[in-house]
Order: sequence, then C-alpha cells, then structure tokens
Amino acid sequence: MSYRAPVPEMLFTLWHVAGLDSVDPDDAEAILSEAGRIAAGVIAPLNRVGDRHGTPFAEGRVTTPPGWREAYRTFTEGGWNGLSAEADHGGQGLPKLIEAACTEMWNGANLAFGLCPLLTQGGIEALAAHGSDDLKARYLEKLVSGEWPATMNLTEPQAGSDLALLRTRAEPAGDGTYRITGSKIYITYGEHDLADNIVHLVLARLPDAPAGTRGISLFLVPKVLPDGTRNDLRCSGIEHKLGIHASPTCSMAFGDDGGATGWLIGQENKGLACMFTMMNAARLNVGLQGVGVAEAATQRALAYAQERRQGKAIGAAEATSPIVAHPDVQRMLLTMKAYTAAARAICYLTAAALDASKGPEGQPALDRASLLTPVAKAFATDLANEVTSLGVQVHGGMGFVEETGAAQLMRDARILGIYEGTNGIQAIDLTARKLPLNGGATARSQIAWMRRAAEGLLKAGDPAFGHMAARLRDGIGSLDRATSHQLAALSSNRPEAALAGATPYLRLFGLTLGGACLARSALAASAALKAGETDPAQAARIALARFYAENLLTAAGGLEQTVVAGGAFTDDATLALAV
Amino acid sequence: MSYRAPVPEMLFTLWHVAGLDSVDPDDAEAILSEAGRIAAGVIAPLNRVGDRHGTPFAEGRVTTPPGWREAYRTFTEGGWNGLSAEADHGGQGLPKLIEAACTEMWNGANLAFGLCPLLTQGGIEALAAHGSDDLKARYLEKLVSGEWPATMNLTEPQAGSDLALLRTRAEPAGDGTYRITGSKIYITYGEHDLADNIVHLVLARLPDAPAGTRGISLFLVPKVLPDGTRNDLRCSGIEHKLGIHASPTCSMAFGDDGGATGWLIGQENKGLACMFTMMNAARLNVGLQGVGVAEAATQRALAYAQERRQGKAIGAAEATSPIVAHPDVQRMLLTMKAYTAAARAICYLTAAALDASKGPEGQPALDRASLLTPVAKAFATDLANEVTSLGVQVHGGMGFVEETGAAQLMRDARILGIYEGTNGIQAIDLTARKLPLNGGATARSQIAWMRRAAEGLLKAGDPAFGHMAARLRDGIGSLDRATSHQLAALSSNRPEAALAGATPYLRLFGLTLGGACLARSALAASAALKAGETDPAQAARIALARFYAENLLTAAGGLEQTVVAGGAFTDDATLALAV
Repeated sequence: MSYRAPVPEMLFTLWHVAGLDSVDPDDAEAILSEAGRIAAGVIAPLNRVGDRHGTPFAEGRVTTPPGWREAYRTFTEGGWNGLSAEADHGGQGLPKLIEAACTEMWNGANLAFGLCPLLTQGGIEALAAHGSDDLKARYLEKLVSGEWPATMNLTEPQAGSDLALLRTRAEPAGDGTYRITGSKIYITYGEHDLADNIVHLVLARLPDAPAGTRGISLFLVPKVLPDGTRNDLRCSGIEHKLGIHASPTCSMAFGDDGGATGWLIGQENKGLACMFTMMNAARLNVGLQGVGVAEAATQRALAYAQERRQGKAIGAAEATSPIVAHPDVQRMLLTMKAYTAAARAICYLTAAALDASKGPEGQPALDRASLLTPVAKAFATDLANEVTSLGVQVHGGMGFVEETGAAQLMRDARILGIYEGTNGIQAIDLTARKLPLNGGATARSQIAWMRRAAEGLLKAGDPAFGHMAARLRDGIGSLDRATSHQLAALSSNRPEAALAGATPYLRLFGLTLGGACLARSALAASAALKAGETDPAQAARIALARFYAENLLTAAGGLEQTVVAGGAFTDDATLALAV
Repeated sequence: MSYRAPVPEMLFTLWHVAGLDSVDPDDAEAILSEAGRIAAGVIAPLNRVGDRHGTPFAEGRVTTPPGWREAYRTFTEGGWNGLSAEADHGGQGLPKLIEAACTEMWNGANLAFGLCPLLTQGGIEALAAHGSDDLKARYLEKLVSGEWPATMNLTEPQAGSDLALLRTRAEPAGDGTYRITGSKIYITYGEHDLADNIVHLVLARLPDAPAGTRGISLFLVPKVLPDGTRNDLRCSGIEHKLGIHASPTCSMAFGDDGGATGWLIGQENKGLACMFTMMNAARLNVGLQGVGVAEAATQRALAYAQERRQGKAIGAAEATSPIVAHPDVQRMLLTMKAYTAAARAICYLTAAALDASKGPEGQPALDRASLLTPVAKAFATDLANEVTSLGVQVHGGMGFVEETGAAQLMRDARILGIYEGTNGIQAIDLTARKLPLNGGATARSQIAWMRRAAEGLLKAGDPAFGHMAARLRDGIGSLDRATSHQLAALSSNRPEAALAGATPYLRLFGLTLGGACLARSALAASAALKAGETDPAQAARIALARFYAENLLTAAGGLEQTVVAGGAFTDDATLALAV
C-alpha cells in the first residue's frame, strides 16, 4: 500500500472546518471515495516507476514513464480534470472545495503526475476569465476534458522571480495572430507524449510595450496549430532534478523559424493580471500538493513504525516493541499527522473562501481567499518539507535507502516551496499586499474567526482538551500583536523591517490558524462524542488537536519576538554577510 | 570555488569559545591553513564527480570514483589521518581540538570522502584503548597512517538501533583466533579500492554469550590476513542511497566458507564498551560533518545571492539588485551562517572537553564531554539539514536542479541525523544518561557556564549587542527549568514523559548553548574593537551573535513549554495514531 486517500478525515474537515454546505453529504462522500479509488489504484502505483524512469528526452521528444499514458487517459475519461470548471465548458461545476480534496489525492498518490492537471487547471481559469469567445470556443473544452493539457511559460534564465526582466517577444502578424520568439526555462510538462496537443500560455512583450511588468502580455501558443501543422516551438532540453523525475521540466524555444503563432489572451500589456489568475489558483493547488505528499509520508512512516521492532518500550511485555511504542517516535508521527491536518484545513478553508466569493458574500470572501492563499501555499509546503524529512527519520537507515520510498517523497516535496512563487515571495505577498487589504480589516476578521474557536474551547470545557484553549489564546495574542507590528512597520520609514519579518510572520499566521482549525475539529468531535457517537476517530481528533496546541503551537511566542525585534538585522546584514 | 575552509572563523572559535591554549598560535594557524589548502584544492573538486559516478559494484569489488585513490594517497601521505593519534603509534599527537577543525574541513569539502578517515579514527580509538599489545603492534600504525582504513560492523537487518538483537556469531578456533559468521548491513566503506587492506571491527556473539547487549564482543577482522591471503569475508552488495553516493554502503557477508578469521578486542562479552569508545568519537565527528556541510552550503548560497539579480531592493539605485540585498534572503543567509557558527562552537567545545579530560581536570572534563557529545551530534546535524535545505531555497529553481550542487549538499547531509545513533537516540542519551551524571551537577555546571556568558554581555554593555543579553538570559532560564523538569520526570513514576520531551529538550539545550557560545564570540570581538582592532570581521561576529539571539534563540520559551507540558501525549498517542 503506497497511498490511501484519507476520505473520512477529508470529509470531516470539509464539513466541520471549511463549512462545506453546498453539496449533498452522500454525493460528496461518493465523489471523494471514487477519487480515492483512482488515486490509490491507478495513480499511486506509478509513483516509483516515474521516479526511476524519469522522462527521457531525445530529438525534441519527451517520453513519459511506462503506464503514464494509460493512467492519464483513465483520469481524463473519468471527468476528473474539470471538476470545478463550468458545465458550459464541459466541466462538472463542482465547488472548489471538492476539487481541493481531489487535488490533494492526486498529488498524495503521485506528485509528478498531479502536476499535469494542476497546470491545466490554471490554464482553464486564465482562458475562462480573460480569453475571447473565439479562443474559448476553440480551446476551453479540450482543456477542461484534459485532452489537451496546458502549460505556464513564465520563467526565462534572467527572469525567475522578477518578471519585469522578461525578454520573449511577440510581434503582431497583421491577421490577428502574433509571432512569438524567445526562450523559456523550467516549463513543467512543456513537452510530453500524454496528449496530441499541448496548449502553452506564454508571457511575452509586444514591440512597443512599456518596460517592466506593465509591458507584458499573455498568449496562447498551441503545439499543434488549428490546421494540424506543428507550431514553431520546441523543447530544447530537460532538467536533471532533485525530485519529481517523472514531471518533465523543459527548456522551450519559440520561433526558431520566424516565430511561433500565438493568440492574445486578454488585453495587450495586461498579461500580468491574466497570469495572476493562473498563479492564484496554482498557489492554492501547490499548497494542496504539500498536504498530499505530507499525508503520503505520514502513512508510510506510521506503517513502518507499526511493523519495525527495535528496543523495549517502558512497560512493554515483550523484549522488543514496534518502534511506534517509543515516545520519541510517537512525537515524530504525531507531529507529521498534526501538521498535515493543519495544512489540509488551511488549504480547504482557502478553497471555501473562493467558493463563497462566487455566492452572496462576494468581495469579502474573495479578499479572505487572497489573504489565505499565500499562507496556504507557503505554510503547507514548508510543512511538507518538514513532514517528509521526518518520514525519512522515522525509517532510520532505511529512510536513506532509495528503495524504501521515503526519500523520494522528501526529494519530490522540495520543489513545492520554490515554484509558483518562492515561499519568501509568498511571505512578502502576505505582509506587503494582503495584510493592508481593507485597512487590515480582512486580517483582523480572520483573527476574530480564530478567537471564536478559542472561546468555543473554553465554553465547551472538555477535559480532553488539556491546555489547548490556553495555547491557542496565547498564539492568537502573538499573531494579533505581530500583525499590528507588521502593519505599522509597513507604513513607517523603515518598511524593510516588515519585509525582514515576513517569513516568521507567515509561519506565525499559519501556525495559529492551523491551531484554530484543529480546535474547530476538536470541538466538532467533542460534540459528537457528547451526542453519543462512539467512532474512535472522534477522540483521536481531539488528541491530535491537543498535541498540536501543546507541542507545536508553543512556537508562536518566539515567532512574535522574532517578527517584532528581529527586523533589526537589516542594519547589520551587509556587515555580517560581507565577511 | 566549491569550498573554502573558513580558517579565520575556525581559529577565532578555537581561541575564544573553546579556549584552545595548548598549541602555539602560529602553529595552529599553519596547520589549519595547510589543511584548508588540501580540503579546498584536493578533496572538494572530487565532490561532484563522486556524486555522479557513485561506486560501481561488480563481482564483489567496489570502484571509487576517478581521482579518489590519488586524493586519498595525498591525504594519508600528508599525515592528516592520524592528527590526534599518539606519536608512539605514528600519529601527530595534536589536540582533538585541532583535529576537530580539520575534520570539519574534510567533510565540508566532501562528505563522502571525509567518512573514510572518520571511521578509521573510530577504529584507532577502539584499538588503542582496548586492543592487546600484539594486535596494536600489528594494526595500529597502519590505521594511524591511513594505509589500512577501518570500518565499523554493527548493524544487521534485524538490529539497527537495538544491538541486543545481534546474531553474528564468533566461535573460538582454539589458536587464539575466532571464526566469524554472519551478515552485516550499512557498512560504510566496507569494500573499496582506496587501499590494499581494510580492517573491519565487527560486533558478534560467542557461543555461550548471555542474551542481549551483555553478550556482545568486538573483533578485528581484516580483509587480508597477515599471511597475505584473503579472509573469508566479502561485500555482497551496495545500497542505492539518497546521498553520499561516493561512500560505498556495503552489505557484508562473513564466513561463507566456514568463518572469517578475527581477533578479540578487549574482553569477551565486553564489546559494547569497546564499541562506545568508537561511537563517542564518531558521534562528535558526525556533528563536525554537519558543521562542514552547513558551512559549504552557506558559502555556496551566499556566493549565488551576491551574483543573482532579481527585483529592486528598497532604497536601491539600480533597477535590479543582487538578491542578497533583499531582507528575506538576508534572513535565510544569516540563519545559515548563525546556525553554522553555533554548531561549530558546540562541537569545538566538546572536543576541548575531551582534550581537558586528558589533563589535570580529568573526570569532570570527561563528564562534560559525555554531556555535550549527544548535543554536538544531534543539534549540529539537525541544523545541517535545515541549513542545506535553506541553501536550496536561496537558489530558487536553480536549487532544485542537480547541476547547481546545492541539492547534493542537502541529500548528503540527510544521513547525518540517522547514522551513529539517530538523533532521537542522542536525545534519549542526553536526557536519560547524561543529565543524571553526578546527580545533575555536570549539566548544572554547563548551564552556569552559559550564565557567565550572559553576565559578561551585561557587564560589557556594548550597544551593538542589542537584545542579546535579554534573549540569552531568557533562553538559559528556559533551559534551567526544563532541565529540572526532565530530571524530576526521570525519577517519577512516568519516566516516559521525560523521554517524550527528549528531542525538544535537546534542541533547547543546543539552541541555548549555541547562544552562549556566540555571546562569548561577540564579547571577544567587542573587546578587540575596544582595543583598537579594525578588522571588519569583529563587528560581523557581533552582528551575527545578535541575529542569532534576536531571531533564533527566541524559540527557547516555546521549547520549554513543549518539554514541560508536551509529554502528556503519551497517554493519547496510541489513540491518535491508531485511526
């Protein structure tokens, strides 16, 4: 068993933390169970072979590992690619929340596989929001079905995090199309054999475009043109990477023979806005990748710890105990499980805000989603690195041996904090752009939501909560003060102090929000037990939330100190780093 | 430039933190400079080729990567293998402290290479302490020179952390030798072509031995027997590992043809004591490996950050700034640099205690070394994982591409927290065996040493110290209370609560001790500046110590809470992990 979708935990989080209410419970369970069957039965078995086989590149072609074409067909034919796309475009019209749970599953089963539909989803959103009717009519259904996957062509060697430096050019051809010329790097699934066509979304500059990010436009550049001929673009090489070996990371050359044909998406020079449509969806989805791979690592480590026998635990009857009986191993496993649950809850909460933004709540929900997106992306993926590394540790020497599979999860997870905007950029986005939303009211309202969870704990007063309420209250106090500090620093004459604290601030935000989410989970579990339910999973949820509060949320106070006083290093950094 | 030995920082730490006083300053500088030349010029250039080439295994033979034989010869012929071994045995008779700095260099240059002499050193110590005169006469000089490297054969498939489960057998042959039969796994440098002979130190059981760890004996089992014939032992395979690809991790088969010939080291059934002689030396050295690889990652990330330009830093004149100018990147680099400096200081302090134990101070210094060894091993290697992962992060997408080299350092470092006793085992060793030494007096005395550093800061009152004194005092308070808690829990009727807190306790110990070490460094630097010195490195040391105190040591309070209240999970863990 390499991955089992944790459907009951997912459903519980959807109902009791994220507040799903627009889908019939039986339907939600049926969808998640079927998705879990595909994830565990079809996609997960390809994870090891993908890692070993990679994607050989020869003569411009990329070959996916054995079995991948068939699995991709099963996936798209089942309608899983367009879960949240509108029914008008061939989608299932389901809430983002349901899609979020499924995204977690595909990526828990196989991160390299899950990336392909993840990028297509970004393409769907950008085209649906900004594309002309004609372009939508020609491409949207194929993207929604997954018959033609999409890519995002942003990065160039000199322009990674800084899109102002982009050089790829687009010249109007006079017939409504454009000729695209330039080189892109790090293009995930830029070339492969899973499909007959690939729809590249490419950022480029028009000849008369202003400098910087205000002169960037977005183009749709298909691998195969509508008349069936090959477009003037090619994969010029693939990267040798630490992980996700089965996801081809391509260098792309556009316009070797005069220019690849492209169609403008949205308005000229407004490509950045279109790109952010893709990026925001992708950022939440990368957070969900983190949740998925953390869940996979936790399952694997727990299974190993239940089987491997070393040493005699205190009070044990037998001479050797399974290592899960040793408190130190329990701490590692509980940390893995608690972090995974917190990250899942935060990502689902973000998806719920996106759903709510399309309903009566509207803009405030969209602002909430904007606030939560960098937290979901960076906190979940930082935790994915920590959890997968703990997964290696639980395996001891076996964890360092590739055959075990624990090391692959750690290698694969390492990209998550880097792509779709590094986690440092997420932290700056949170502090510099999201905290100031509505004069800070969006952030304050989220903190008030956390405070209600802490008050709920006090009111319920279940002794099984231990010090949960006190630790959550402490965490919220720290977050509240750190938020005031960041907002004040931003509008001071030393805004760099706010940026210097951005990363520990995001960690503090995620850590506390995660604590509030698990508190809500514990409250729902406690109420269920009080109402006579006997499912042992309910007591387990309370125990896990308590562990998180008493063992992990304790870091909040130190993070507050770091945010508030730690920015002082900006004065000395040049000094300390120059020697 | 892939690695440059930080000789001035090493010397400063040796003098001002570890208190080296038994070597002439000019001599120390000459030795370290020459070692740095070998590390950077001879050993570091082989790091990438080693990772790519690995150690092909065929027909029982292991081939090291191109250039490794020559480099190993340069290393041994320079006398670097036996730096701290006694002159009687062909060593240089230098203090452990000098050797510690050199060990850091070899491993900063190339972890896979550094492992070979590291294991030989363990063999030298075990043989020198416990071997018969005859055995010493035959093997010690060859080990000290490095002409014959040594290995440690402990692990078997069913016996990793739990040596009580060992099954390898040793039968007396009647002529003073023994016939060894059994299988060992994870034997580092168990077979290779760097030398004509390999001296295996093997744990095995005599036929009438008591069960458990009290029935284990240690044997010297050479690959080539004194008469020039091959011994009855072979490498049966090598592991495919996450990192240190150039260090062959061998499965060893002893006695396929009736039994390998071995000689007893020490007394029958007292092998565990002999093994601990090897292990203690090795544990400190593994900590030093962590320091070395962290230093290498820091240098590489800093060099990249000074060159790579993305975005415009606040107040910058040019349109794009080197990323080192961005506060968030500065935080990563300063974290890497500060953790590396703290880990280095703790390891050197441990080596200094070992040196002092051989002088007039004697047993108290040995107890201090015993206390510090698990901290040096686990804290330094946990930090090595964090620092090398930050190194990948600083590189952005380039960090995930293997050609850059940052990913290799992260992969290589991942073994350090696992081998020579997992870091969980180090934490249990610290809490359960080392804290109770002399009724807790050894630990209290180390805490008093830290307190004197905090008092020194207050007394010196240099404004450049910022909040350093306050944060250090807070940290020491947390450590003090957590120490009392652990000692009380150990002797309570719930000792598992002490074990449950062992890992966060070790982190708290290392974090605070590191803060005290950097405070001593800052004090020395401040005094030098006051005395008129103008070396900018002095102000940099103060800035780095301040960064550590205000940004990293802030975690101490939360760790205390976790240690004190967090052990409660032992009651619920079975529940929370069963679902």
